[in-house]
Amino acid sequence: MSYLDKVKAAQDRNNSWLCIGLDPQPERLPLPAARWDEPVLPFNKAIIEATADLVCAYKPNLGFYLQWGAAGIIALERTIAYIPDDIPIIVDCKTGDIGHTQAAWAAGLFDEWDVDAITVNPYVGAEAVLPVIGKRPDKAVYILARTSNPSAMDFQGKLALGEGLSAAVLRRSQGWQTAGHKGYVVGATYPEELAVARQLAPAANFLIPGVGAQGGDLEAAVKYGSDAVAGPVINASRNVIYASAGVDFAEAARNAAQKLRDQINRLRSAGGS
Amino acid sequence: MSYLDKVKAAQDRNNSWLCIGLDPQPERLPLPAARWDEPVLPFNKAIIEATADLVCAYKPNLGFYLQWGAAGIIALERTIAYIPDDIPIIVDCKTGDIGHTQAAWAAGLFDEWDVDAITVNPYVGAEAVLPVIGKRPDKAVYILARTSNPSAMDFQGKLALGEGLSAAVLRRSQGWQTAGHKGYVVGATYPEELAVARQLAPAANFLIPGVGAQGGDLEAAVKYGSDAVAGPVINASRNVIYASAGVDFAEAARNAAQKLRDQINRLRSAGGS
Repeated sequence: MSYLDKVKAAQDRNNSWLCIGLDPQPERLPLPAARWDEPVLPFNKAIIEATADLVCAYKPNLGFYLQWGAAGIIALERTIAYIPDDIPIIVDCKTGDIGHTQAAWAAGLFDEWDVDAITVNPYVGAEAVLPVIGKRPDKAVYILARTSNPSAMDFQGKLALGEGLSAAVLRRSQGWQTAGHKGYVVGATYPEELAVARQLAPAANFLIPGVGAQGGDLEAAVKYGSDAVAGPVINASRNVIYASAGVDFAEAARNAAQKLRDQINRLRSAGGS
Repeated sequence: MSYLDKVKAAQDRNNSWLCIGLDPQPERLPLPAARWDEPVLPFNKAIIEATADLVCAYKPNLGFYLQWGAAGIIALERTIAYIPDDIPIIVDCKTGDIGHTQAAWAAGLFDEWDVDAITVNPYVGAEAVLPVIGKRPDKAVYILARTSNPSAMDFQGKLALGEGLSAAVLRRSQGWQTAGHKGYVVGATYPEELAVARQLAPAANFLIPGVGAQGGDLEAAVKYGSDAVAGPVINASRNVIYASAGVDFAEAARNAAQKLRDQINRLRSAGGS
């Protein structure tokens, strides 16, 4: 099954474009999890059990696991194994190294862990992508195009005008021939930029972070997010997984996820998509 | 001790600007290591024992460890602990995420593992750097400026003319105020670009990859590499650690490292640096 088909199937099954970022932070773990010796895996399991029928993907970010050293990566490996097989897993690692190193990343994340997609940083050019999905038809990358952070404009340029680095990345990468799917990370904090990104990459799946804690524009994400096969993967993390700091954290995460999913679905109905 | 002082001390003690990249690749491990159940740590230990008096730093690249999943990260964690305390450790992870994620990377690599420096990717702007070394005076980042790979020119622009993304990164990041040291990765495959990078960032330590297997210009690395405190960190990996595929691999690695160190030192003498 292609990556897009797997995303589409999960979106239809759960009627959801919501992706939950599994980003454990020691200082934000809810009270019961903070008491456990090895909190990451049981915390993640509780969140997954509470939300698996509400999401179209899970997105663990590598950096949050590495802060525990090897113990965190063990928890990540086991989290990945725990996620139901029919829910796409995107490892947010933003790797962007030269060719033979990117091949090693792909060996670890796709061959060893069998996740569905990873995020990549295009600074080094085509080599960030080709060794990763050049010959893997069922896998995908999300290439950083526009990020959702305050300093994004330092180098990314005026995407809304079709100018600068983000626009160049979207344009040039269209020519990179890959067996797997090339999607893009397009932050939702600058909504008019989503329209330009969609023009430049009409067939690409969009991973849209910045919704929720970062305050992105959900309406634009819904309006411009869909490609021909699937809807966008709209990520929320902190405002879902840390919805409560108490013993009810899993239930609160479920409620927050459901609220966000339904909010997205109302916008979809209003826009007819 | 500041990062630059630590580098300088190691360079003086071993009379060396050579850094060895500890990049284990399953298909290239020498015959005896390939027979071990858990080859990475003992392979690295043999390389470190054979070369610790010849280097100014070691640079393990995260991607090569992740290809073994969590087992590889355990081997990396133990490799880091095994490297003598007075040799700087640079983890090449090229992380470039938004602020709170970069803070998690720094927590893992600096606070949990206590390495000396990491490489960062500046695509997201200042947030790639500030949460990492903003308040850590004894740590450093190497910001990707010019990479040494064939597709580097896809987005990095004409650094030799002072134009484009690499030049913008060098210029703009000079204004980022950090307690720790801001160095740069400047590939040695385009030697005239090293001269421009040195002009744009006069006080920065340069991490220069691409020497050896990638065929960079060692002469330019020596000529433009030094800052006011220390010499450049000139990295070689594959042509040192895989110098022999047989039982003599550690001895062959030592010989290759010695040859490269001495070649650098002859260029230093010739140039008077």
